[in-house]
Amino acid sequence: MSAAAAACVVALDVGGTTIKGGVCDRDAAVVHRERRGTAARDGAGAVVDGIVALADALAADGRRRFGADGVVGIGLAVPGLVDEARGVALEAVNLPWRDLALADVVAGRSGLPVVLSHDVRAAAAAEAALGAGRGAGDFLFVAIGTGIGAAIVVGGEPYAGAHGRAGELGHTVVEPDGPPCECGGAGHLEAIASAAAIERAYADAGGADGASAREVAALARASDPIARSVWDRAVAALAAGLASAVAVLDPARIVIGGGLAGAGDALFAPLAAAVADRVDVGAPPPIVPAALGAEAGCRGAALLAWRALAPG
Amino acid sequence: MSAAAAACVVALDVGGTTIKGGVCDRDAAVVHRERRGTAARDGAGAVVDGIVALADALAADGRRRFGADGVVGIGLAVPGLVDEARGVALEAVNLPWRDLALADVVAGRSGLPVVLSHDVRAAAAAEAALGAGRGAGDFLFVAIGTGIGAAIVVGGEPYAGAHGRAGELGHTVVEPDGPPCECGGAGHLEAIASAAAIERAYADAGGADGASAREVAALARASDPIARSVWDRAVAALAAGLASAVAVLDPARIVIGGGLAGAGDALFAPLAAAVADRVDVGAPPPIVPAALGAEAGCRGAALLAWRALAPG
Repeated sequence: MSAAAAACVVALDVGGTTIKGGVCDRDAAVVHRERRGTAARDGAGAVVDGIVALADALAADGRRRFGADGVVGIGLAVPGLVDEARGVALEAVNLPWRDLALADVVAGRSGLPVVLSHDVRAAAAAEAALGAGRGAGDFLFVAIGTGIGAAIVVGGEPYAGAHGRAGELGHTVVEPDGPPCECGGAGHLEAIASAAAIERAYADAGGADGASAREVAALARASDPIARSVWDRAVAALAAGLASAVAVLDPARIVIGGGLAGAGDALFAPLAAAVADRVDVGAPPPIVPAALGAEAGCRGAALLAWRALAPG
Repeated sequence: MSAAAAACVVALDVGGTTIKGGVCDRDAAVVHRERRGTAARDGAGAVVDGIVALADALAADGRRRFGADGVVGIGLAVPGLVDEARGVALEAVNLPWRDLALADVVAGRSGLPVVLSHDVRAAAAAEAALGAGRGAGDFLFVAIGTGIGAAIVVGGEPYAGAHGRAGELGHTVVEPDGPPCECGGAGHLEAIASAAAIERAYADAGGADGASAREVAALARASDPIARSVWDRAVAALAAGLASAVAVLDPARIVIGGGLAGAGDALFAPLAAAVADRVDVGAPPPIVPAALGAEAGCRGAALLAWRALAPG
């Protein structure tokens, strides 16, 4: 083991409302955590200020734990479109930046090298190495929350595509005459089966206002007819999207993360049955819940930073 | 350059009705070609006999051209499900084998090492190195003929998936209430937009019996109303399937091969417009015709044999 065994990286997972941060050891375990609001409505400058402030606070903690030279660098995961090779945050629906050289900016202000990654691909890298993707080699990670994003994992490594846009499973069409999507399309998986879409559809159909997607799932199991109809439609849409992904990608496993994975059996039992119904070539891959929960993004950002900054 | 510069490989591309064979030089150029019927109705033994007989004839030609030791081995491309690492032909809808250790069988009878590959992935490897995929790195190859198959190319190499089944774009759902597919599914791309499906739909709708898909395309351009309706539906289905593949895979380019690519502008112009309409994130990738025509499978089988048997 190199000297880096007694060192750490600072990891940040930037979301639309919260920045989750951690000090992570060589095994990408979080030894200290802090979070702060993203301040997305105050503009890109405010978001960057928040990232740098949280990174500085975490780096100070890392130095206390691992010594003055104990912080190897910063792993930074962000949503949307990301050019990981150049360290540029291209755009994101819930963050105000565009073509921002975020890795360079944060490195310049924090004095530490920065490895930029995509939040879903970072989470997938963590599940591959430490979580529900272990041993699968090639698998599909799907994060279902406010939106639906996926990462194609090949040989344990997330695949970014030609322009850093691979994995937009949420923007595949599952109902050609379905509801509009925020991206401008129609009938997209995300517009029917994301937690946000489920909550909206339930409220629109006359269900209790403010019910969470997981509450809708529980009500559907308890035979609430409105919840049942909304939930069944979401599960059917997910099954359609996953079956098409299985046909094209042939993954060994499907790992489902994000908030909706917390619905447990109410999601996984009908989803596995519906995917099996739709997969006509070979056995369908197992569909399993993610293992690392809300920390997957942070731990993945840490892993990717370790790999880039202190490989081996 | 190694001694292999003055040598050749024998390449065979096994289809449901014809086995195409070639003697290929170090650059995978076909210096001699022969073909024979597949005899699929006479059982797996007859198909293997035909493969071995054609391979022997081609190897004899190769020895005449390149010397007694001038044949390095055999590249063998087959359709359906293929375990390339183990050299096993798993199954194919139009060929009578199941879990056949084809590489070993042909090697034993021909006395030459055999590299087994999947026909669409072989064609994609050839387009990547020598044809319309050159310089693209990561692209999607789609072969549209009797069926619809695809190959995901990553860094110039076709990706097989976890079980050798990646690329089954023909079996993704594009019309949830669409026509039945031979695989048992419904609304699959292949059931609407393959050459066979177009021909069947045109005849079923009262069009001239026996019209080829390319003739249907030409009639659609000439405003034949039945042809127009069948063709427009096929193009819309292709656009839907490709747009979903673009969202998930983010390819730099889409290369279309197979017989239907011969429809030219009647296919490519409306298809590019329809895909652009459906891609909501980033610019859609260019959609271009394959460059190597019906020889792509053979040349790809040769390339993959060279890489495995005499790399560098």
